[in-house]
Amino acid sequence: MAKRRDKLKLGAFLYPTGHHVAAWRHPQAQADAGVNFRHYVALAKKAEAAKFDLVFMADSVAVRGTDVDVLSRGALRYVAQFEPLTLLTALSAVTTNLGFVATASTTYNEPFHLARAFASLDQISGGRGGWNLVTSSNETEALNFGLDAHPAHADRYERAREFAAVVEGLWDSWEDDAFVRDKDSGIYFARDKLHVLHHRGKHFQVKGPLNVARSPQGRPVVVQAGSSEAGKQLAAESAEVIFTAQQTLADATAFYADVKGRLAQHGREPDDLKIMPGVFPVVGRTEAEAREKYEEIQSLIHPAVGLSLLSHMTGGLDLSSYDLDGPLPVEALPVTEGGKSRQTLLIELATRENLTIRQLYLRIAGARGHWTLIGTPEQIVDQLEERFQNYGADGFNVMPPHLPVGLDDFVALVVPELRRRGLFREEYEGRTLRENLGLRRPEHFARRAVAQAAE
Amino acid sequence: MAKRRDKLKLGAFLYPTGHHVAAWRHPQAQADAGVNFRHYVALAKKAEAAKFDLVFMADSVAVRGTDVDVLSRGALRYVAQFEPLTLLTALSAVTTNLGFVATASTTYNEPFHLARAFASLDQISGGRGGWNLVTSSNETEALNFGLDAHPAHADRYERAREFAAVVEGLWDSWEDDAFVRDKDSGIYFARDKLHVLHHRGKHFQVKGPLNVARSPQGRPVVVQAGSSEAGKQLAAESAEVIFTAQQTLADATAFYADVKGRLAQHGREPDDLKIMPGVFPVVGRTEAEAREKYEEIQSLIHPAVGLSLLSHMTGGLDLSSYDLDGPLPVEALPVTEGGKSRQTLLIELATRENLTIRQLYLRIAGARGHWTLIGTPEQIVDQLEERFQNYGADGFNVMPPHLPVGLDDFVALVVPELRRRGLFREEYEGRTLRENLGLRRPEHFARRAVAQAAE
Repeated sequence: MAKRRDKLKLGAFLYPTGHHVAAWRHPQAQADAGVNFRHYVALAKKAEAAKFDLVFMADSVAVRGTDVDVLSRGALRYVAQFEPLTLLTALSAVTTNLGFVATASTTYNEPFHLARAFASLDQISGGRGGWNLVTSSNETEALNFGLDAHPAHADRYERAREFAAVVEGLWDSWEDDAFVRDKDSGIYFARDKLHVLHHRGKHFQVKGPLNVARSPQGRPVVVQAGSSEAGKQLAAESAEVIFTAQQTLADATAFYADVKGRLAQHGREPDDLKIMPGVFPVVGRTEAEAREKYEEIQSLIHPAVGLSLLSHMTGGLDLSSYDLDGPLPVEALPVTEGGKSRQTLLIELATRENLTIRQLYLRIAGARGHWTLIGTPEQIVDQLEERFQNYGADGFNVMPPHLPVGLDDFVALVVPELRRRGLFREEYEGRTLRENLGLRRPEHFARRAVAQAAE
Repeated sequence: MAKRRDKLKLGAFLYPTGHHVAAWRHPQAQADAGVNFRHYVALAKKAEAAKFDLVFMADSVAVRGTDVDVLSRGALRYVAQFEPLTLLTALSAVTTNLGFVATASTTYNEPFHLARAFASLDQISGGRGGWNLVTSSNETEALNFGLDAHPAHADRYERAREFAAVVEGLWDSWEDDAFVRDKDSGIYFARDKLHVLHHRGKHFQVKGPLNVARSPQGRPVVVQAGSSEAGKQLAAESAEVIFTAQQTLADATAFYADVKGRLAQHGREPDDLKIMPGVFPVVGRTEAEAREKYEEIQSLIHPAVGLSLLSHMTGGLDLSSYDLDGPLPVEALPVTEGGKSRQTLLIELATRENLTIRQLYLRIAGARGHWTLIGTPEQIVDQLEERFQNYGADGFNVMPPHLPVGLDDFVALVVPELRRRGLFREEYEGRTLRENLGLRRPEHFARRAVAQAAE
């Protein structure tokens, strides 16, 4: 393949025991990961030694699901694990270059609290923080926050858009050089470098200022995951990284071109947004070994777990009365307010490959709808390189099947092959997450205004 | 003095640059503490080496005050510092025995978020977390959360009481041995050890369960600070540590007897609640050296800062039109919803010692109403011992005037004198904060029910 692009980016997307639905049952998996901080310290140090850009954590402000039988068999439904902001800030204390992206929902939070916690992560880490901005997609979350039902998809995105604007406004409460701390004169900060937000909008009324200083990277990196129309639009306005889940090269390049093409309308350059699809790699020294590894972990899936996962990801219909070896009842699936884009992906996958319900749940139980690569390091890197060089991705968010071994394998086998082909860094480019991702440090709005006036 | 009691407890109450209002201007102060994580790492390691029970952080979800001239001269009004939960969890990653107590308000938070973040701190630290439960006392906070004015004192306490009950209920979502993680059978948790809260009250509706497991110390230690009637009642119901601010031995012993006397009504023992007054120590090798240190830092207070601080702490009346060398206009002070008990303490202090406005602001500018001890290690320990042995305190929350030197001085000079008299530990008693404070590990409610049924 003609080499057109230089280096790709890598994230380590860590679920406590790994991404496979039966990960915790694997003989080598750290089953107590949800209460084992040392497990995470080891993973973060390993990712940093391999020069990953960042560690990424998903989140849910509720246990996902209400079927206690199904819940009791799994470790992936947020039944019990660390809260991402506290965990990732703690991990930043024992690392130097690695970035940390925490997911936090705009649906049941206040923008002041989130702006502050992420600014604090960003300061404590010396400019290595990021916020994965999501809207809540699970009904169970509403019930923990005084509501009887979940807000509609469109309402959540409207709120999310205003939420993001408030957070970004709060992050510019202070100019970079506001804190002069002149002991002789007694002036701690320069009054004209404080900017009070005074936001009054439809969903929020927030005076400000934020009580955290601007960070070494200006502000945390803003990440988004949604692939719906509203999600893509919000991303084009404000995201700097997108984590996405296209299955095929054609879909990936179409998504890439679509989102990058929207940036100019918002005065942004293509490089201002990095697209990093999730990839679920099962790597072996031979293809047979990789297949064997995959079959081993697939064999650990209990049918109740697989079926329930499929039901959840296709809109909540109870599939237990349908023939496991028959087709997905596409017409019977409910129109859903949560996770629209994921449902569409799954219906397309089932239709394209003519999968039975059982085959479909076995397929998604692995990477839960994400892109699965099974093979040798060369085979896996061939796929990554193809997607990267054809502008289907700027990098990848690696989703290890089970931990810690899934990350060990990727670092030991895939990273060296990426390096051999010149596709991945040997050393970090900088100390902040932005420097490593190749994202510009955003100027404070008051400085932008000055620069524009001078033109 | 006849020794009646054994060991006292010590907390390190850290404001970024120290507790003195002019702390940041001191030549040896770390003026950039608000953005300097390494500063806090050094302080935490120092406190742990000295065997302190805990580090304590106050909090505010707003810059405190609106007079930008005054704000620009100080570092104590939460203008820019780390958020406590992220900071303390990060510090727990670089320590082993030290406890970490973060302040968080019940007024502008959701109980699910706080229950989760504190449970996460508690798990990540291996059972060293604590929550200082407060109600917001500052008008500026309301303006960051969609309100035009601050809720009334009584309403805030009513909400706080229900908030505490929800949080404690969520912390008991899982029994200690709920997570069996049996790889062979595929059972991750025991279904009968999950307890869904289903709370429906006046202020909150929270289904649960919390998605964090029960911690090594059962749950975080609950701390309170209020000394008002409502505050004392709430503390008697649910607090395990009280940080308070009595100036005299008589007031301290009266407060101690009052609060401890309320515990039996709630089925609690006197040892279930530790009372730890704040103490602002200025220590010198000689008394003259201590006085000189004190005068040095007092001389750094700008009059605008002192007057504004006094105004804030007495209810918000603008005192600048009054004679600095005249008395506090007690009759003109507004009836305040915020910080009632603090206002009363200050009026009593001014009346008792017949202080002018200037003298009063100089007095409180040091420890802002807290108990100030200036002298040699022997003189300071005499005072601490007297209060401890006469049941005015179970320990002390040490408020260093400026950092890092104020903590260095206390560790180098006062701690050895405490040890010489057998009043402070040589080694930690345990690994959890409860073990070190001598607090019982709370049994899960389902286990208590079983124990009661068996009686």
